[in-house]
Amino acid sequence: MFKINENYLKLPGSYLFSTIGKKVRAYGEAHPEAKIIRLGIGDVTQPLAPAIIEALHGAVEEMGEEAAFRGYAPDLGYEFLRTAIAEQDYRARGCDIGADEIFISDGAKCDCGNIQEIFSLDNLVAVCDPVYPVYVDSNVMAGRTGVYDRDTETWSNVIYMPCREENGFAPELPRRTPDLIYLCFPNNPTGAAVRKGQLQEWVDYANRVGAVILYDAAYEAYISEEDVPHSIYECEGARACAIEFRSFSKNAGFTGLRLGFTVVPKELKSGDVSLHALWARRHGTKYNGAPYIVQRAGEAVYTKEGRRQLKEQVAYYMNNARYILEGLKGAGFCVSGGVNAPYIWLKAPERMTSWEFFDVLLSKVQVVGTPGSGFGPSGEHYFRLTAFGSYENTVEAVDRIKNMKLG
Amino acid sequence: MFKINENYLKLPGSYLFSTIGKKVRAYGEAHPEAKIIRLGIGDVTQPLAPAIIEALHGAVEEMGEEAAFRGYAPDLGYEFLRTAIAEQDYRARGCDIGADEIFISDGAKCDCGNIQEIFSLDNLVAVCDPVYPVYVDSNVMAGRTGVYDRDTETWSNVIYMPCREENGFAPELPRRTPDLIYLCFPNNPTGAAVRKGQLQEWVDYANRVGAVILYDAAYEAYISEEDVPHSIYECEGARACAIEFRSFSKNAGFTGLRLGFTVVPKELKSGDVSLHALWARRHGTKYNGAPYIVQRAGEAVYTKEGRRQLKEQVAYYMNNARYILEGLKGAGFCVSGGVNAPYIWLKAPERMTSWEFFDVLLSKVQVVGTPGSGFGPSGEHYFRLTAFGSYENTVEAVDRIKNMKLG
Repeated sequence: MFKINENYLKLPGSYLFSTIGKKVRAYGEAHPEAKIIRLGIGDVTQPLAPAIIEALHGAVEEMGEEAAFRGYAPDLGYEFLRTAIAEQDYRARGCDIGADEIFISDGAKCDCGNIQEIFSLDNLVAVCDPVYPVYVDSNVMAGRTGVYDRDTETWSNVIYMPCREENGFAPELPRRTPDLIYLCFPNNPTGAAVRKGQLQEWVDYANRVGAVILYDAAYEAYISEEDVPHSIYECEGARACAIEFRSFSKNAGFTGLRLGFTVVPKELKSGDVSLHALWARRHGTKYNGAPYIVQRAGEAVYTKEGRRQLKEQVAYYMNNARYILEGLKGAGFCVSGGVNAPYIWLKAPERMTSWEFFDVLLSKVQVVGTPGSGFGPSGEHYFRLTAFGSYENTVEAVDRIKNMKLG
Repeated sequence: MFKINENYLKLPGSYLFSTIGKKVRAYGEAHPEAKIIRLGIGDVTQPLAPAIIEALHGAVEEMGEEAAFRGYAPDLGYEFLRTAIAEQDYRARGCDIGADEIFISDGAKCDCGNIQEIFSLDNLVAVCDPVYPVYVDSNVMAGRTGVYDRDTETWSNVIYMPCREENGFAPELPRRTPDLIYLCFPNNPTGAAVRKGQLQEWVDYANRVGAVILYDAAYEAYISEEDVPHSIYECEGARACAIEFRSFSKNAGFTGLRLGFTVVPKELKSGDVSLHALWARRHGTKYNGAPYIVQRAGEAVYTKEGRRQLKEQVAYYMNNARYILEGLKGAGFCVSGGVNAPYIWLKAPERMTSWEFFDVLLSKVQVVGTPGSGFGPSGEHYFRLTAFGSYENTVEAVDRIKNMKLG
């Protein structure tokens, strides 16, 4: 008789966005005249830039012609794309990353979820709290996280590194020594960034204790300040301890087009075994590459026109972020993020819980955000707003919140 | 200190296609004038059909317009595609499969590789021999297969079901009772098909012993004979014991476009737990959907024009298959497959090993195929030719083999 992977049953329900959906639907049905503004989910709204559309049409044409048609992609991805990435995302920033250390994929979520497979089950995982749920859930499914405590909403075998106002939403080095450290900067959900010196401390720490940093840099395009690293490989020694995940979702609007990549430096080893070889084996056995046409679209991101258009697109969203940040600050809210990231992290007023504040915003001003408690215990009393809406909606939402009367 | 997943180190090298590549390159360098014809890898060569190209262009246009732009896809895939599949691939064949039992993905390879994750590590796996390597390798990586014996090239904890001339390349019910049974019909690499009655026996067996059948139907579009099932759900009781994988790679030439789907019927349960819920959780946590434009391309496969064009494309390849099959049969070779599948399974003459025959074909007539031993011990002395080349190349390759003098 077959048996299922019992680890799946340990997962607490993934109710965050479905609960939000239900509450919003119920409100909308009860108030059909209400204009609800959604600043909750981290999905982009601007259409793909013209340079990308042009590249897609061109590649589609090729796929219709016998001489230009492409079947299975090369295992690591097309060289034209890997070379552009190595050149512009890494070498141009002084990072020593080669095109053959880059694995093209269909997005950072898959890679972040799958990467734990190449590690032993008895590795100890450390995550920031609050955190993007995929890091934890994928380890739960593998059986690496111990027992779940429903009161504290934590796993016995996971190190949680609180990111709160007190530490500027930057994790401190943990007391227990982890084997795998998930870091995401600029951060989802808090919108916080770290300075290069801070990240260097993590790299030094990982090299000292023999840990691997799994670095999610999906939001690097939103960095506006100097001295905030775009890649962990800007830090000395990172080639020996870090894997980096990148996405085209937020810098180029590819959430519906699907493209990302993972960097595994060849220096990163356990004894004689390179993690690059392990990841290559996983890639080769369980994956068949991102579509050719999408890889061509990715290439367009690195052209002169593409770069110019996407800089404008990012600026559009960051203008929203600024409006939210300044508007809410001016109205007396305690807010952070929004400077190097498309997320604004807002403290619920009057000691409200995240969900209480959610209900207040929905019922009083019809604005939808994401309760911070959905991202982990240290997210309680916080609330995430995203800059990915339209400018008009963002302005209206912020103005409504500013004029809202509590109580 | 972090530790790697040691199961990866147990994998024997994946040398099949890289060894082929090396041998072909070496021959080409030594004989630069030679025209080498490749009938080895199972990749398509015909361009995408006009209906698909048109759908792609249309969807690309939408992605460039604010009002039509689409971000993250729904978790299971777009309903327009799932409905078309449920209707035409299943209901039209009398199979009771709903659109909400279909999970759209980027290909059958990923799904076949990932499906084992939702099962316990102590399930016993059964595979055909020869076999598509992903089924075994993905279980090795998970730690489910025991110890590898380099002499017999088998794992201690895998049930091998030989598919040889003697049994018409159809597996027999195993003596040890498996928990998970991988079946692929029409078969890669042998090109063999099973009758509906034969498949019904497997479904009855699985229901009797409490096993799950993981049914890979990637080649169903090549079925030309009556009474060969296109889906395992044509068999009674399959909803309670079978998961089916489908691909757009071979029926519509999507190897470079990436689209597939997996059917998990809601009846398929372990106690109270439905495998549908587990797969949905995996999908939701570690995957972000196939690109919108590719799902629209998939939809075009089910339009009247798309169906007509793809029928022609499949006929083109099957015409190649027929030429290979009849040509080699006429020349005295022992051949099978090629009637309901794009693969021809050829017995090497004069008791040659698969690799000896590979070398002979390359050196004497410059034709490249795939040594059957690369697919498992029972593939030894066999050789796979694919029908995916151009007609001209296929004819030339077969004529060369026919006129080849051995010894």
